[in-house]
Amino acid sequence: MQIYDLIQKTRRRQKLTAEEIRFLVNGFTAGEIPDFCMSAWLMAVCCHGLTTEETVDLTIAIRDSGTCLDLSELGQITVDKHSTGGIGDKTTLLIAPITAACGGYVPKMSGRGLGFTGGTIDKLESIPGFRVNMSVPDFIRQVKEIGCAVIAQSGNLTPADKKIYALRNLTATVDSIPLICSSIMSKKLALGADCILLDVKYGSGAFMKTAADAAVLAKSMVNVGNMADKKCRAMITDMNAPLGHTVGNALEIAEVIHILRGEEKNNLTELALSLSAHMLELSKKGSLQECRRMAEQALTSGKALEVLSHMIEAQGGDASVTEHPEKLPQTRTQKYLKAERSGYLSAIDSEQAGLACLELGAGRTANHISIDMGAGLTFLHDIGDPIQAGDPIAVIHGNSETLCELAEKRLLSAIQISEQPVAKTNLIYSII
Amino acid sequence: MQIYDLIQKTRRRQKLTAEEIRFLVNGFTAGEIPDFCMSAWLMAVCCHGLTTEETVDLTIAIRDSGTCLDLSELGQITVDKHSTGGIGDKTTLLIAPITAACGGYVPKMSGRGLGFTGGTIDKLESIPGFRVNMSVPDFIRQVKEIGCAVIAQSGNLTPADKKIYALRNLTATVDSIPLICSSIMSKKLALGADCILLDVKYGSGAFMKTAADAAVLAKSMVNVGNMADKKCRAMITDMNAPLGHTVGNALEIAEVIHILRGEEKNNLTELALSLSAHMLELSKKGSLQECRRMAEQALTSGKALEVLSHMIEAQGGDASVTEHPEKLPQTRTQKYLKAERSGYLSAIDSEQAGLACLELGAGRTANHISIDMGAGLTFLHDIGDPIQAGDPIAVIHGNSETLCELAEKRLLSAIQISEQPVAKTNLIYSII
Repeated sequence: MQIYDLIQKTRRRQKLTAEEIRFLVNGFTAGEIPDFCMSAWLMAVCCHGLTTEETVDLTIAIRDSGTCLDLSELGQITVDKHSTGGIGDKTTLLIAPITAACGGYVPKMSGRGLGFTGGTIDKLESIPGFRVNMSVPDFIRQVKEIGCAVIAQSGNLTPADKKIYALRNLTATVDSIPLICSSIMSKKLALGADCILLDVKYGSGAFMKTAADAAVLAKSMVNVGNMADKKCRAMITDMNAPLGHTVGNALEIAEVIHILRGEEKNNLTELALSLSAHMLELSKKGSLQECRRMAEQALTSGKALEVLSHMIEAQGGDASVTEHPEKLPQTRTQKYLKAERSGYLSAIDSEQAGLACLELGAGRTANHISIDMGAGLTFLHDIGDPIQAGDPIAVIHGNSETLCELAEKRLLSAIQISEQPVAKTNLIYSII
Repeated sequence: MQIYDLIQKTRRRQKLTAEEIRFLVNGFTAGEIPDFCMSAWLMAVCCHGLTTEETVDLTIAIRDSGTCLDLSELGQITVDKHSTGGIGDKTTLLIAPITAACGGYVPKMSGRGLGFTGGTIDKLESIPGFRVNMSVPDFIRQVKEIGCAVIAQSGNLTPADKKIYALRNLTATVDSIPLICSSIMSKKLALGADCILLDVKYGSGAFMKTAADAAVLAKSMVNVGNMADKKCRAMITDMNAPLGHTVGNALEIAEVIHILRGEEKNNLTELALSLSAHMLELSKKGSLQECRRMAEQALTSGKALEVLSHMIEAQGGDASVTEHPEKLPQTRTQKYLKAERSGYLSAIDSEQAGLACLELGAGRTANHISIDMGAGLTFLHDIGDPIQAGDPIAVIHGNSETLCELAEKRLLSAIQISEQPVAKTNLIYSII
């Protein structure tokens, strides 16, 4: 088999066999196929696409490039959840304890943030003492005991994906449905859960800008998952405005705690309950309606908060933050962002909100950058709320006046106030 | 300027500026842009193409990567000729002396053969003593004195093309009209002639398999040449059967001599006269009709043979071969290929004929391979000739019985004899 012929085939829209795709992935991972051949092939994929079968073969070849977890020891159906990433997206930290409180098992390995989207692992690390690294046996043991564990990816999972992604990132071959799909799904398959629930976001703060594009990606991922013998479902959700009221690491943990304590309710609550219901239904805990009711009860009864507290404790964190969220890291300076005119809050551009947080130090611009755990934004209103000129709309949390002023400038252009009343939008666009 | 953005633009079918293309070509040639970025860009070009303006900018950037010849010292219009390569293509060796004999100037730098197509330079080296390397001042002096010189490419001409071509050859990005066009035309522009006559071949032994594909490439090259202020013309010619009666280095030189001596006339004669007429007309030596007549006279009068003899002498070769072609290298063994049945010679697959010569040692499979100057094929009939079973159709020249038998086997499948009479085809398909 010659790499030249495989590139030529994809260039000519001829289908590659599973064997050919495996040769490509393994050869590249082993360093036998040079970068310049792989990048040419990746570009051919970007331009001409891959068939569903080829995408499945690529996903499986990437999955098999490293170790795969075996979760069968847990002895019940496991469900993994994946979000394509957004601004203020802390749903994992709500649905893991809610689902676990209802008897589901949520063994979750999460990523760190890069660019303007945050990472669940970074958020958890804002809890004093919280450990995100754990051996696989300890991870499985914790899920068995508490129902959930959220840790950083460990071990040699999908090394081919890491190498391919690094090359894509340098050669403008990132935004390709089959490549995105195989990158995400290979990791999900390697993580070993029986079912996969995908939260595919669209809007200014998401990778996919329109619901239609998100649906294409979602369908591709669900197809690939199903063809690889996993039960898959996808929700297409709106990421035009930030999720919930906060963006930033410790701020988002505090928001999760407030929601689980029943002290706060916003668009995020609904999304978390809906996702949890699907998690439970996929875990065969009842009908979707029954599961929804169970999820609501777990939230209102305080059982989900209890599970979160146990999880934090089990992972070495200071669980008293669930009673006293003010113990979480805070910035030296807070600054109110005030409405420039009266009307109705009609839009908060989530991409701009994410970039403002990045400037405040809440995210990383490169892998080695450390982040400011307390920095971020708190929004005081929901889309549709009436606003008076001079009202505070948001709190900017930064470690200096200068940083806060910079963020304020960016945010002012990101927030729209209209004269006409604005309808509240539903976060969930469709389910595939 | 970031290479990432340029790749992204071409991927998204957005036009690159001349400055961006120059950045790409110069950065890559200087080793500042890595291979894996360039191959991704080249693949994007293969998939989405380039506009004519971009192709011109690419051609000029490649031209300017090295030195350019200045032929103005010759003091008259100069015409360069380029063939996209074929089997038995010795037209340069006919039209250079014919055109020079009529007062035209033909300063020609040619290439060596690789794969199954031969190179003019290799063919000339089969003449004992012939020197293909010459300084540029000597080259110009010879053209002034004799009217023509055919030498190997010298100096630092289009280094960017060499580097880009090497990468294309490894990444399945060879067959792309804008890339082929810029590769050929950048060299032609650097060689400095005022006019460029292109012989674009199609058929089994050519790079372009159909006349339509050849016309697309020809139009692109003529456009680019015209936009770079050169007068350009292209002839689309048939390369389904070998050109003339011989394939092989010394054999082709002998055929050229026989044609110039008036001892042989075949489809090649017509093509050479037609190309020479266009060369002369581009040199403003008269109308196309007048030029055609001049070319015919140069051939029949023996003046063209005289020029060839002078050129061989000037380049250190044994000019007596023009009187005694049998002095040229010959193989130890010759073997007749005999017709297996009676009928009309309907096809000689030129690709197979080229491959047979490669097996006989007449071509190189890699740059460092030396070639057998005497090896090759002589065809004894033209397409359309009536044939009796057992008639010799070709002579196989090889240095062992085994080699000849191998070539015989391949040739038998390449030669078709039909029961019905076959029309003789015209080599020249169209002129652009």
